[in-house]
Amino acid sequence: MSGNLLSHIQTPGDLRKLEPQQLPQLAKELRDFIIDIVSVKEGHLGASLGVVELTIALHYVFNTPDDLLVWDVGHQAYGHKILTGRRDNFDTNRQLGGISGFPKRSESIYDSFGVGHSSTSISAALGMAIASRLKGEDDKNHIAVIGDASIASGMAFEGLNHAGVTDANLLVILNDNAIGIDPSVGALKDYLTQVKDGKNPRENNMIKSLNFDYSGPVDGHDLNGLIKELERLKNKKGPKFLHIITTKGKGLKQAEEDQVKYHAPGKFDKLTGEILKIADENLPPKYQDVFGLTLVELAEKNDKIIGITPAMPSGSSMKFMMEAFPERAIDVGIAEQHAVTLSAGMATQGMIVYCNIYSTFLQRAYDQVIHDVALQNLPVIFCLDRAGLVGEDGATHHGVFDLAYLNCIPNLSIFAPLNERELRNILYTVQLGLDHPIAIRYPRGRGESTEWQLPFEKIPFGKAKQLKTGSEVAILTTGTIGNNVTKALAETEKADLFSHYHFGFVKPVDEETLRTILNKYKTVITVEDGTVKGGFGSIISAFATTHNYTTNITILGIPDEFIEHGSIAQLQHYCGIDVKSLKDIFSTY
Amino acid sequence: MSGNLLSHIQTPGDLRKLEPQQLPQLAKELRDFIIDIVSVKEGHLGASLGVVELTIALHYVFNTPDDLLVWDVGHQAYGHKILTGRRDNFDTNRQLGGISGFPKRSESIYDSFGVGHSSTSISAALGMAIASRLKGEDDKNHIAVIGDASIASGMAFEGLNHAGVTDANLLVILNDNAIGIDPSVGALKDYLTQVKDGKNPRENNMIKSLNFDYSGPVDGHDLNGLIKELERLKNKKGPKFLHIITTKGKGLKQAEEDQVKYHAPGKFDKLTGEILKIADENLPPKYQDVFGLTLVELAEKNDKIIGITPAMPSGSSMKFMMEAFPERAIDVGIAEQHAVTLSAGMATQGMIVYCNIYSTFLQRAYDQVIHDVALQNLPVIFCLDRAGLVGEDGATHHGVFDLAYLNCIPNLSIFAPLNERELRNILYTVQLGLDHPIAIRYPRGRGESTEWQLPFEKIPFGKAKQLKTGSEVAILTTGTIGNNVTKALAETEKADLFSHYHFGFVKPVDEETLRTILNKYKTVITVEDGTVKGGFGSIISAFATTHNYTTNITILGIPDEFIEHGSIAQLQHYCGIDVKSLKDIFSTY
Repeated sequence: MSGNLLSHIQTPGDLRKLEPQQLPQLAKELRDFIIDIVSVKEGHLGASLGVVELTIALHYVFNTPDDLLVWDVGHQAYGHKILTGRRDNFDTNRQLGGISGFPKRSESIYDSFGVGHSSTSISAALGMAIASRLKGEDDKNHIAVIGDASIASGMAFEGLNHAGVTDANLLVILNDNAIGIDPSVGALKDYLTQVKDGKNPRENNMIKSLNFDYSGPVDGHDLNGLIKELERLKNKKGPKFLHIITTKGKGLKQAEEDQVKYHAPGKFDKLTGEILKIADENLPPKYQDVFGLTLVELAEKNDKIIGITPAMPSGSSMKFMMEAFPERAIDVGIAEQHAVTLSAGMATQGMIVYCNIYSTFLQRAYDQVIHDVALQNLPVIFCLDRAGLVGEDGATHHGVFDLAYLNCIPNLSIFAPLNERELRNILYTVQLGLDHPIAIRYPRGRGESTEWQLPFEKIPFGKAKQLKTGSEVAILTTGTIGNNVTKALAETEKADLFSHYHFGFVKPVDEETLRTILNKYKTVITVEDGTVKGGFGSIISAFATTHNYTTNITILGIPDEFIEHGSIAQLQHYCGIDVKSLKDIFSTY
Repeated sequence: MSGNLLSHIQTPGDLRKLEPQQLPQLAKELRDFIIDIVSVKEGHLGASLGVVELTIALHYVFNTPDDLLVWDVGHQAYGHKILTGRRDNFDTNRQLGGISGFPKRSESIYDSFGVGHSSTSISAALGMAIASRLKGEDDKNHIAVIGDASIASGMAFEGLNHAGVTDANLLVILNDNAIGIDPSVGALKDYLTQVKDGKNPRENNMIKSLNFDYSGPVDGHDLNGLIKELERLKNKKGPKFLHIITTKGKGLKQAEEDQVKYHAPGKFDKLTGEILKIADENLPPKYQDVFGLTLVELAEKNDKIIGITPAMPSGSSMKFMMEAFPERAIDVGIAEQHAVTLSAGMATQGMIVYCNIYSTFLQRAYDQVIHDVALQNLPVIFCLDRAGLVGEDGATHHGVFDLAYLNCIPNLSIFAPLNERELRNILYTVQLGLDHPIAIRYPRGRGESTEWQLPFEKIPFGKAKQLKTGSEVAILTTGTIGNNVTKALAETEKADLFSHYHFGFVKPVDEETLRTILNKYKTVITVEDGTVKGGFGSIISAFATTHNYTTNITILGIPDEFIEHGSIAQLQHYCGIDVKSLKDIFSTY
């Protein structure tokens, strides 16, 4: 499948044997190869197409892996993977046991730093560069490739601010395509656009103000120009900054034209570029859409409602609110810290703020949740999408720590709906009058039923719900994983033995129901799609032991290890919380 | 004690009745008042002296509390507190039951946003400004006052980047004194210095690049100039940025000359400015010095050792390493996120990095600990100073969440030494060869013995230690709070009933010793200076219930509420973990 040139490249050493005039042909082959595979196997398309020339130029000019190359986020690293020994198993990308969708140290010596969350590349590469200086390796190059959406995140600024006062051999390449997953936002983006348009002379340069040797903007699809500039920069010492302009999705017409959709388009026709439609009319809704559509419904009747998203209008479905009420829904860019404290500021003025952040990304704003929201007891509503196992994005993206890291925060409530109707109803309930913050966590993927847009019902605060009655064993669940339990019990022979309780509220936990359970059953099983350490099961355990109950408790959930990529079903099976595993466990009673 | 003018000011309304020419006299009285009280009652001196004129000008020009004023960090807000109704109880500053050392919403309507950690003010004020717009309150002003150390933190950049594309009525005032707690660092600081020195014309302005209406630099001690400029800005709409130059410690000669020492000098002679010396030759060492001095000792023999501090060279005693090995110890400024990922980058190149961050500030880098260090299993050594209750700094600064938020992270070990000798020995042990990251948490304040610089001993990995043998009850502790238990048992009549085990390692917990304990004792008491929710006691509970033990466990620690300010002893008493409370509990057995 790979072309004439590409098929002979096992490592960048092979690439460096090519003549410069052969590289455009290689770029074409590499682009075709990415399109071939991703059209069938799915994955992140647009970002990798955009940096085909840059990827080739970097490995051509620099002596990887001795020179150290860090890709920010890593959505764009498919070409890098294919040129560094992973061409033949690139079709296992993002699959269980296959290669990761992101650079990963354990996968290849060419992946100098594992990524997934944005804006880490400058700090990591600077750390490497300072280490090289200390080791006397003064000729070594250290390169961070970062997009214009990622460089606007605070952490990237911290890295630049430090690098500018070092003599570290660091090259920061700004891959400026004016888009992250959704279009980039913010004042820096406006500034970069002016630079591109020639409205800001090089003399008046923000990056220069931070002591960087700035060059650019350079056309990122011009291989000759790129190589010439990289050669020049390779021989300069100290912190350097190269601004290149690329087109996300470059080389596939539709991907260039609809960059948001083709960020990760799913399967598509590699010739026409057409995305293969999934017939989803009769499928239950995505949780993100339940959030997005319900928020609009509520906002229509309550003008205090505000929506905040850090760079995920599409992924969180906040886009519905942004379309319906552009003044009251804000994409702040990749800026989780700012998103949370901005929400807190709004809440002080009586606004009802739904701050929607993927569970894994709320880790970026942990201090702000504690210090700016919970400590002041401001009634911000955190909506944590992609909680639990997220599937193919893998270890960097699973939202499995949230129950543990949120439970220790005073004043904060935590709720995990059982299904899309409960998500809808909790979103309704919290805007009726809340005197403290709450985190609502829900998963990636679809709900249970197409019949979800029912009249709103208020959810009683802090109450658990019995879903099934049984005689011997109480199963306690929180969130949508409870549906696995329901399905497993439906297939369990001795289902009569089992009671099933749904704890929507993880905090405050329903102590009254818990006492009833612990008094009645000698055996309790807890099931959650968060870490066993410190999560829902731990909360139940601590309550039991400190209240003199002698119940035996089995805690099922995510074990104390990082879970790799695969389908959600495969990963749930690995963790022993899929329907089959649960049925097997229940059958031993 | 307060002067002629100051004594008549109960609210800023009274201030606004003064004639402009009276304000310099008021500034003098306010400065004297701050010096009078802080010289006796202790507190943060330098920052508040530096903004006396700014504080008066802001309340004079703006219509507080309707106009909303946010002080970043809040070290500098003493003048603000004194002018807004807290003059007469300012002598209770930072004491149990007294006013907080930081602005705090529940304390006054003039404190529009609670602070303590840096760089939140722009986001919070912007949130307020956007809310005002939505409410149609277009004449309202929203002001963030932020220092040059704080504005270099990534979160502040995120706020500026967003504000620049809004039409929010936001005024950011940069209080540029070239120092945080320690001198400011970074490329932005160099840039600001050039601006001050007139080397960067206003036309070439980084802040203007972010779409702000920039003005300055203005002399921040010139009341007339300040008021004139604030009056002008008050009538301009949209995002505005005023750069003022001040001198930290202004008005007290010694404080101006030694700004680090006079940040929070303790008691001093208000006339001479001389700091009252505490005879500390015969006191046990501060934990921070055990860290700082031991690190130098280790670094002398191991050239792979690096020290990283985000803006706390003095507070963490990293300054010793910075003096001894300037190339190998780096202050990265208020940039915890960058500090952690920089450490990770260095660790990939074989460096042994001691990344020292106060426990409460590691919350700022939680994602980086998970995503950049633990996921890649890089052997970074996190040294968490100020773990547990920190005393007078209060709710924003207690390091009580760390055990809970770190325990759920795979690959990461957690260690809490019993005393300064164990801190010294774990610092020694981890550089002998570590194949995973570790967090070492230790408290503010002094150790137990002056005899601490003993020969290094290797600490066995993952092992607990029995400190005392008894017959009925096992007391399990982690960290220095174990010394309270030892002291309490020494005063307990039926001390023979109690065994005492020290779990230096919270993770991995010593399961073998734990099984022995749970087999032997029907009653277990755990004691920790972290949150009861999700901390050490929870770990013991979860182990017990999931391994069929029916032990009754009492968990002592920080209850599920934010703990206010007071002395550490007072706060430990409030939480029931001081010597007396423990003795009382032990006496009931």
